[in-house]
Amino acid sequence: MTMPTPEASAAAAARIDVLEGPEAIAAIVGRVAEHGGRIRTVATIRQLATDPPQSELEIEVDGLTADELLDALDDLPDIQAIRRTRALGSIFGKRVIVVGGGAQVAQVALGAVSEADRHNLRGERISVDTIPLIGEANIAAAVRAVADLPRARLLVLAGSIMGGDISNAADELRAVGIPIIALNMVGSITEHVDLVVSDPVQAGTMAVMAIADTATFDLIRQRGRRY
Amino acid sequence: MTMPTPEASAAAAARIDVLEGPEAIAAIVGRVAEHGGRIRTVATIRQLATDPPQSELEIEVDGLTADELLDALDDLPDIQAIRRTRALGSIFGKRVIVVGGGAQVAQVALGAVSEADRHNLRGERISVDTIPLIGEANIAAAVRAVADLPRARLLVLAGSIMGGDISNAADELRAVGIPIIALNMVGSITEHVDLVVSDPVQAGTMAVMAIADTATFDLIRQRGRRY
Repeated sequence: MTMPTPEASAAAAARIDVLEGPEAIAAIVGRVAEHGGRIRTVATIRQLATDPPQSELEIEVDGLTADELLDALDDLPDIQAIRRTRALGSIFGKRVIVVGGGAQVAQVALGAVSEADRHNLRGERISVDTIPLIGEANIAAAVRAVADLPRARLLVLAGSIMGGDISNAADELRAVGIPIIALNMVGSITEHVDLVVSDPVQAGTMAVMAIADTATFDLIRQRGRRY
Repeated sequence: MTMPTPEASAAAAARIDVLEGPEAIAAIVGRVAEHGGRIRTVATIRQLATDPPQSELEIEVDGLTADELLDALDDLPDIQAIRRTRALGSIFGKRVIVVGGGAQVAQVALGAVSEADRHNLRGERISVDTIPLIGEANIAAAVRAVADLPRARLLVLAGSIMGGDISNAADELRAVGIPIIALNMVGSITEHVDLVVSDPVQAGTMAVMAIADTATFDLIRQRGRRY
């Protein structure tokens, strides 16, 4: 039912300094819609210590060129400054997310970064994003939140024992179309993922291969296997 | 002039299935503003293979409770489904970004993940996000784009030679308030960063210490030094 969102390299993007207030973003989004653009992202990236208060937004829009986007926003009163940027998908690309215990996360990252290097050399854009966490509730919440991360394509669960609500969260994440590779470990999680790999460096490598267009690794054909 | 945006743990968040079209997001943002909420993020996270086409949005709002957010969006015609989520800042927290050559990025990540593990055990949320890249233009574009990444707090440049436009981009990034640590390397970059560290594992460790509330490392006091 789900498919990856295109990598956004064609989206027009800008960084905007805007006066704080509930109406400012609504005015920007409304103006983009009037001009036939489709908002892909509006994100508050930081607040400025100005008087009156301003914040910086990052905006990405489909269906308008960069010039058309700047024209559309030209005379909005709350906008203090605007500059062209590049859509984040064209810079940071597809994301492998690694969650779990620090020792294993670091080893998975080693494999994944090394493999991403090889594919990015050939023109891909693959990022490896990690967070070390402890505890069933924290890890389960992070697994669920991967579904809300832009450009997340695959999750690696790197630890020594996981189960319970983490396994429920894994089922939910796979249901929205994001596959999971887990290290071989204690607990029920290994029954709720697409692939189980014992060596963390190889797990990271396979994770990148699974989402790289320049690799021939097909995770669907490996589903349920253990290495 | 800039200060970090608060970590958003209080923001109300939801994932929304919405019919594709230029007006759908404008209607959502307008409704949030009418109810006094302030949009922090609206991001298209994936497209659904439905007929008619739908996409999934992640939305984060300040100034409304989760219940108020759901009430505000209750009867919008383009919304097909809505579920509560948690704001990404409360899950993935502050981000250290590591950009450069694969071998060095992996070693910086090893240090940063190990150090983040120690702070996250004490209740922080620090992520380590990486991308291996090659070439002056690609790396300079990535350095500039770090300014557009939500929750990015520090950049580590991990490589063996960097300069030229990468140094220009480093100046621009520091001007928006994001500090940079670089490995000791060939090229002008080491004159355009806050701190130079020879050992990549230590560089990753110091990067996390610099943004951790549970550490006593003050990057401002170290500015311009080399280790």
